[in-house]
Amino acid sequence: MLESSHQNLAMVTCTAPVNIAVVKYWGKRNEDLILPINSSLSVTLHQEQLKTTTTIACSRSFQQDRIWLNGKEEDISCPRLQSCLQEIRRLARKRRNTGDPTSDISVVSHKVHICSVNNFPTAAGLASSAAGYACLVYTLSQLFGVEGELSTVARQGSGSACRSLYGGFVQWKMGERSDGKDSIAEQVESESYWPELRVLILVVSAEQKSVGSTSGMHTSVETSQLLKYRADVVVPCRMVEMIRVIRQRDFPAFGELTMKDSNQFHATCLDTYPPIFYLNNVSHRIISLVHRYNQFYGETRVAYTFDAGPNAVIYTLQEHVPEFVQVVRHFFPSEANGSEFVRGRPVCSADLSEELKRALNMEPTPKGIHYIISTKAGPGPCVVEDPNHHLLGVDGLPKKNAVSD
Amino acid sequence: MLESSHQNLAMVTCTAPVNIAVVKYWGKRNEDLILPINSSLSVTLHQEQLKTTTTIACSRSFQQDRIWLNGKEEDISCPRLQSCLQEIRRLARKRRNTGDPTSDISVVSHKVHICSVNNFPTAAGLASSAAGYACLVYTLSQLFGVEGELSTVARQGSGSACRSLYGGFVQWKMGERSDGKDSIAEQVESESYWPELRVLILVVSAEQKSVGSTSGMHTSVETSQLLKYRADVVVPCRMVEMIRVIRQRDFPAFGELTMKDSNQFHATCLDTYPPIFYLNNVSHRIISLVHRYNQFYGETRVAYTFDAGPNAVIYTLQEHVPEFVQVVRHFFPSEANGSEFVRGRPVCSADLSEELKRALNMEPTPKGIHYIISTKAGPGPCVVEDPNHHLLGVDGLPKKNAVSD
Repeated sequence: MLESSHQNLAMVTCTAPVNIAVVKYWGKRNEDLILPINSSLSVTLHQEQLKTTTTIACSRSFQQDRIWLNGKEEDISCPRLQSCLQEIRRLARKRRNTGDPTSDISVVSHKVHICSVNNFPTAAGLASSAAGYACLVYTLSQLFGVEGELSTVARQGSGSACRSLYGGFVQWKMGERSDGKDSIAEQVESESYWPELRVLILVVSAEQKSVGSTSGMHTSVETSQLLKYRADVVVPCRMVEMIRVIRQRDFPAFGELTMKDSNQFHATCLDTYPPIFYLNNVSHRIISLVHRYNQFYGETRVAYTFDAGPNAVIYTLQEHVPEFVQVVRHFFPSEANGSEFVRGRPVCSADLSEELKRALNMEPTPKGIHYIISTKAGPGPCVVEDPNHHLLGVDGLPKKNAVSD
Repeated sequence: MLESSHQNLAMVTCTAPVNIAVVKYWGKRNEDLILPINSSLSVTLHQEQLKTTTTIACSRSFQQDRIWLNGKEEDISCPRLQSCLQEIRRLARKRRNTGDPTSDISVVSHKVHICSVNNFPTAAGLASSAAGYACLVYTLSQLFGVEGELSTVARQGSGSACRSLYGGFVQWKMGERSDGKDSIAEQVESESYWPELRVLILVVSAEQKSVGSTSGMHTSVETSQLLKYRADVVVPCRMVEMIRVIRQRDFPAFGELTMKDSNQFHATCLDTYPPIFYLNNVSHRIISLVHRYNQFYGETRVAYTFDAGPNAVIYTLQEHVPEFVQVVRHFFPSEANGSEFVRGRPVCSADLSEELKRALNMEPTPKGIHYIISTKAGPGPCVVEDPNHHLLGVDGLPKKNAVSD
């Protein structure tokens, strides 16, 4: 934490990861507190490839709370931002009142300046709100010296943000209480538990703008009978099963359950009235390709999952990455050169046998996939110690290089 | 019935209609007897636009049972064909044994020649098996003088064929018995009950061949938890509701329930493992267009339903046909000239207001729809009295004009 005697400026910078659910969250039982109708489970992705960085400064000379997202000042009065700010300040005051001698009393009453950037383009269609709210809450907690359970705070920014507070394999337990105190995220296993697991994000171009997840899940809860059954009956069993197969590092079982849960989530979107479609023809082709690939080998080697958009996230094991990436290159030929098509963790080249190509039996879809982000599971939020990485200057305003996306 | 003294030839020709379900059948509890996991309800389409015509001859000089479908001889040993043939012959013998003096004893023991054609191209992707098996069973019953309940026989050829034995609005009651005797079709209301109801079939080009409905529903029953819930809990309520709204001729309620049930059927296909996709991007756009059109008017004026393929079947009322057809023409511009794009019942031209076009807010999809078949509800199977329309000649072989599709 940078403390400047000038203006009483205190400043902290942290980073937080994206997470991709393998048991999906879809539907709230309480819209204000963001309490879900079912538990969910996700893998936290490595921040080397995808992360949000947030700097928060506070000073008694700041006139008002302000926020800059990806270089642009946004409205701080957004209810979900306000929920997180108020909740963290409440926890900080509570800590002060309980007489923690290390707590800084003055800082809580100061206004904050928040500056946040993603290291991935918004255009990639990756849900950035989870990383964003996790980073906001984590950074505020560092600034205000709040410790303990933060997932109930992050959850009130964006439901799935609570899962981005931990690394590795994380469950969000739906809880039972109406005040949401037991609707919290917990780490199931750390990122080092299953080191061979790999993640490939296939960035697909969306033809049309999709229904946003907030309004989509609202309509689903209102209209889909199948969603209610899924939440009440199917997901509780799947949570137990998913934790078991992760602990056993049983990839075929993990992959199959991940695919089934993605499909069921999209099924409930289709059962929504009017129906919601997040998968497009390219998504359908990726699904078909994955099943044919697994069928060729007689085992589940790769698994897809799709959130509220057409991008595929592929889970697989390290040993299968080169060949499967080559399969994607072959059936979704790109105009980009090789190095641009695969980003993130380097992927070795591989040759495809004629037998495999024949078995996959699919017409290529040129430019169906923009590029691949190659990554793996990673840790939870981190504090950035180097003050050179602060996104705000000593004047409390965004540095020039934090302005561009 | 033509009875030729030469060769003891007896011959009958009948026609049977296509039906389109508004509460969908998907899943069997008994694959041999074709007993469904839920009841279903359909509208029988008019035979002026879509029908199967079947001629069946029998003669003691025929050496074996034979069948020609759309001009090509097919294998008569197909189990479902055999089920229907055996079952009708059993009923005919039973009738003889119970001493019906009008029954022709000899005819039942003779071999049959069957010749069947559709008046619509197979390429249209319209399920022809329902009309085909209904026509087969109805024609056999006429030839052998079998009366009474035929839907249990047609059901054993193709499940939905039982609904094509009646005109108008027809339910297939799933029944409870393990022998299937109570799994029968019944007319809910005749085709004249709701004379304003109209049907538009939007023939969409399929990029890929879909999973067949027999294997698709088998996989769904095996793997989809949502399908089980749908069949056990959702459909029983929807059957009651659908019959009520048809009897009240309540189009908005009929249309909404029809769309919801189509969407839920496709949702269970997506919940199948591996998932089954019958809707493509053009189907999605039609769905979106229908919802926007209804939203513009603040009421459900048109409703879509999709079977195991990308074609949309639109239900609407007579008064809305011209404008909605013009909407389809506008957003799915065709290269065909006007008369070819709309086939079947003539449709008056209509102008679209700029306000409507703006509200629908969609990029046109050229050639997304091949053509439209304009039709309405119609009667059940009929006997064709004119011997000139027999598809078989006095030699018991297909006439030349029955050979081409």
